[in-house]
Amino acid sequence: MGIVITLLTDFGTVDGYVGAMKGVLLTRAPDAQVVDLTHEISPQDVITGAWALKEAAPWFPPGTIHLSVVDPGVGTTRRALLLKSEGHLFVGPDNGLLSLAAGGAVEGWLLDRPQWFCQPVSNTFHGRDIFASVAGHLAAGVAPELLGSPVQSWAQLDLPAPRRDQSQVIGQIARVDRFGNLITNVDQPMIGDLTAWEVSIGGITVGPIQRTFGDVRPGQWVAYLGSGGMLEIAVREGRAVDLLRPLGGTKVKVILCER
Amino acid sequence: MGIVITLLTDFGTVDGYVGAMKGVLLTRAPDAQVVDLTHEISPQDVITGAWALKEAAPWFPPGTIHLSVVDPGVGTTRRALLLKSEGHLFVGPDNGLLSLAAGGAVEGWLLDRPQWFCQPVSNTFHGRDIFASVAGHLAAGVAPELLGSPVQSWAQLDLPAPRRDQSQVIGQIARVDRFGNLITNVDQPMIGDLTAWEVSIGGITVGPIQRTFGDVRPGQWVAYLGSGGMLEIAVREGRAVDLLRPLGGTKVKVILCER
Amino acid sequence: MGIVITLLTDFGTVDGYVGAMKGVLLTRAPDAQVVDLTHEISPQDVITGAWALKEAAPWFPPGTIHLSVVDPGVGTTRRALLLKSEGHLFVGPDNGLLSLAAGGAVEGWLLDRPQWFCQPVSNTFHGRDIFASVAGHLAAGVAPELLGSPVQSWAQLDLPAPRRDQSQVIGQIARVDRFGNLITNVDQPMIGDLTAWEVSIGGITVGPIQRTFGDVRPGQWVAYLGSGGMLEIAVREGRAVDLLRPLGGTKVKVILCER
Repeated sequence: MGIVITLLTDFGTVDGYVGAMKGVLLTRAPDAQVVDLTHEISPQDVITGAWALKEAAPWFPPGTIHLSVVDPGVGTTRRALLLKSEGHLFVGPDNGLLSLAAGGAVEGWLLDRPQWFCQPVSNTFHGRDIFASVAGHLAAGVAPELLGSPVQSWAQLDLPAPRRDQSQVIGQIARVDRFGNLITNVDQPMIGDLTAWEVSIGGITVGPIQRTFGDVRPGQWVAYLGSGGMLEIAVREGRAVDLLRPLGGTKVKVILCER
Repeated sequence: MGIVITLLTDFGTVDGYVGAMKGVLLTRAPDAQVVDLTHEISPQDVITGAWALKEAAPWFPPGTIHLSVVDPGVGTTRRALLLKSEGHLFVGPDNGLLSLAAGGAVEGWLLDRPQWFCQPVSNTFHGRDIFASVAGHLAAGVAPELLGSPVQSWAQLDLPAPRRDQSQVIGQIARVDRFGNLITNVDQPMIGDLTAWEVSIGGITVGPIQRTFGDVRPGQWVAYLGSGGMLEIAVREGRAVDLLRPLGGTKVKVILCER
Repeated sequence: MGIVITLLTDFGTVDGYVGAMKGVLLTRAPDAQVVDLTHEISPQDVITGAWALKEAAPWFPPGTIHLSVVDPGVGTTRRALLLKSEGHLFVGPDNGLLSLAAGGAVEGWLLDRPQWFCQPVSNTFHGRDIFASVAGHLAAGVAPELLGSPVQSWAQLDLPAPRRDQSQVIGQIARVDRFGNLITNVDQPMIGDLTAWEVSIGGITVGPIQRTFGDVRPGQWVAYLGSGGMLEIAVREGRAVDLLRPLGGTKVKVILCER
């Protein structure tokens, strides 16, 4: 079995777009295993795509190629990018999509060599003609140095950071998952001892940080350290995001006070 | 090509959760082929997950590993389970999810050995840290006896059984498929000769059991033996479940009378 | 790694149907790689399925087997078909579904030999019992000549053709993609020089054919040659199909006038 190539897009699967990308990959690298991460990122939602990629990619073995396309700038002058980080290879548009997953010591290349693209390159579907084509050549063993020109910097996402204010941490909701749970932008290193805090959100007291949502009764609010290492807030057997609406929606502040 | 691992979850694919599980599997067993069954089970709907697994799993070759996670009890004391049935291996929570697919002569093990888990184990994502990790080790060749402790019994689903009452069979709707067809809990062995019965549902006369929905006119109700071996009731080129609403919804009785 | 088998259906993934098909394929051909194109074709929408297959299939390597099931006629006398076109093999119902993707010099066989089916054949799930079973045998190396009887003609889709009328081309919307973009039935060969035309739709002037949607401002209508080689009409950063509703919906005419 050959190299693993993961796919993450905002294309949905109603159309043939994802299929065409898989075809290009398997034409270039017949021995690769193509693995879907998701195609259900909301159209053009680069930030959610970046979080989903960061959540999944690190669990794959080194050598995995991660092909990610959420690309509102297709057909404009936004650049095409290949990043190498801790043995993983990331291919996609240079719009911040790859930037959360590809952390640490990273090498980068601009994909500026048309001989590795499908020709003619469509103006509206670089996912197939540039990104899948290059990822397929990578999987077939072509070195990054041949596929593009070295580059030292690339787009980063402009994400709000949590703020530490005396004995408080003031954070925000970074995203909402399928279960309606709220994933905040507050991570474990920022708060240290989990038992030292009392959490509130939008004026509602959630209480101390629990081990898991099983620690409260059905229908109750609960804060806990999520599987991605971030503080999460949920309602046991409910959808927290729905209860949040009258309080101001996902813009409300998440406040941790020392107990 | 290595072993096949199927995945069934209620995680959807909007988040990175399913991707993380695939990464753990392929890290442990790089030669495995990971095959999606479904990730669209309604959140925490163990019964529908159990039916979907029963419908798909038996068609895979012996030696297949079926990793299934619909897990409302994550983080509580519900146990983690490995079952072996007719050469198939089933990994998932001990809440009944595996019980319909793993029938016949079954051996079971409790997954109680943390050395086979991802460490640290998250309190909210056993799908990745326990179930995918153990399934990956299984695919890599570790024997069930090493992965857990033998166990003699496990959770079963509490499903209503059809009732035989003189010359009648009284059944229920077990689930509704994507086409709006009604899959009942009445199976072929219970009714024997298919031509001997007249079917009604919620007071509506459906008629005798047909060979297929092509045997009635568009818009008509039809009963037939479904592809999973259960009596199904549909409306040709329509959605039976929608027409059922004014009759009492999916709680209505399915009645078979001898003709 | 063995042969690639693509899957396209209208089954959704809520039920176990797609999983059962994958199981049959991998039982017959354990070394095959099973690749999802889409399972989200609207129930029984043969035409959209045919377009999605045409969009994706040509990008796969020769030797790929494309298993496609959108099958409103299951259980009736519609025939089962195997087509070979440019090294690709297409398996599915004979209702036009395969006809757009399998162009050029095509050989055909009727799948009329029950020894290659799952037995007993369900009356409602030929996707599993006939089509997946035959596709699996194909992937395992059985020759088309053994699997069926040669046939010279098969169902074609009855699609409206664009009309050339003096200095005008009058076309229609063939389908709408996930982004709400309108894919017309007007292709490049019909219009030749892209710069020679002015496009309008439903009485709205869209303007000349642009290189890509980045060539207009957000919110503006734009016409361009799409990635599948057809003229497409979109609204930059909007959903063209929604704006079309007050103009008459997707039935409106697409008119190209010489500039």
